[in-house]
Amino acid sequence: MLYSPGMTTPRNTKQRGEPVVRRVLEVALEQLATHGFERLSVPEVAALAGLNKTSVYRRWPTKADLVREALAASMGHTAEALDSGDLRADLLALARTAVGFVESPSGLAVLRTLLAEGANPEVKGLAAAMLHQQGINGPALVFERAIARGELAQDTDATLVLTTLAGAIMHRILIEQSPVTEHFFTTLIDMVLFGVKRC
Amino acid sequence: MLYSPGMTTPRNTKQRGEPVVRRVLEVALEQLATHGFERLSVPEVAALAGLNKTSVYRRWPTKADLVREALAASMGHTAEALDSGDLRADLLALARTAVGFVESPSGLAVLRTLLAEGANPEVKGLAAAMLHQQGINGPALVFERAIARGELAQDTDATLVLTTLAGAIMHRILIEQSPVTEHFFTTLIDMVLFGVKRC
Repeated sequence: MLYSPGMTTPRNTKQRGEPVVRRVLEVALEQLATHGFERLSVPEVAALAGLNKTSVYRRWPTKADLVREALAASMGHTAEALDSGDLRADLLALARTAVGFVESPSGLAVLRTLLAEGANPEVKGLAAAMLHQQGINGPALVFERAIARGELAQDTDATLVLTTLAGAIMHRILIEQSPVTEHFFTTLIDMVLFGVKRC
Repeated sequence: MLYSPGMTTPRNTKQRGEPVVRRVLEVALEQLATHGFERLSVPEVAALAGLNKTSVYRRWPTKADLVREALAASMGHTAEALDSGDLRADLLALARTAVGFVESPSGLAVLRTLLAEGANPEVKGLAAAMLHQQGINGPALVFERAIARGELAQDTDATLVLTTLAGAIMHRILIEQSPVTEHFFTTLIDMVLFGVKRC
């Protein structure tokens, strides 16, 4: 049985519920990769996961809610664990995780559909929510710690650095369609880090 | 009347032909922006441009040939004219042109469809051809001249720098959906140039 986000959930119910939640999120991601956001059907996701649509809508009131959680689950929560004490090492680990997702068949398909449908207001909202969430839980923490350690200046533009690193990797995969090797992102990170540390 | 690429064309025929060529290329770009590559129909492009399809196929034997030329024509040939004697000034001018294209409604739509269909082998070939052409005629020259002037080291990885600049701009427009201001790309270019000049 699925549970609503705001509900108080007894521990045993939650434990029984989680494999079902994971299954729904996996099916939603597959459907997103195959059909894109606009053509993704929540009743179809429910059917493929062996549930009725009411159960799915109870937990995720809108299609965007479902897709947002499916994307968040598939990308994992890596940055919380990243705290090597060295900015370069943290960025290399972040890049490895991001590349692993984007180079996987479903990751690449998901990215393509979301880029293609970027003009759709719901997709736009989805992208904004994901960037916001990443900014709070993820990479931004890596920069805050580097600033606290004195590795970077107080006024470092962390967003510009992240945009630059993520953009270069995206361009390499989607436009050049070349593999993102360890050599590629190490050289990239060294170049950008040197540029950002100049001040 | 249209002419084949390899044909010897009398000057007056060519001059009469060019407005027709431009019209076909404009229609092809509009159709690409609206329908994407896979659903673009050459006979429909011909009809909308007021020609029969045989005339169009005589000049562009395949759909990929037509789309390649439409894209090349819409992006212009800016880099040939870029030779300010200063790498930073050349890169700022390049960025202004690229951003102008990608932020225009048809440029953005074209980029979205090509990214969405990147797994299609013809689209993949198209992207590779465009990058190759750009690399020969365009931005690469800017780096060769900077190396010749001694502004950059002989072994500078120009491709990495271009990937990084283009990727950051693409991420800003497509993922963050934020405007690419003069401030944004000036800060970006200064950061990356400082990073690449370290050696």
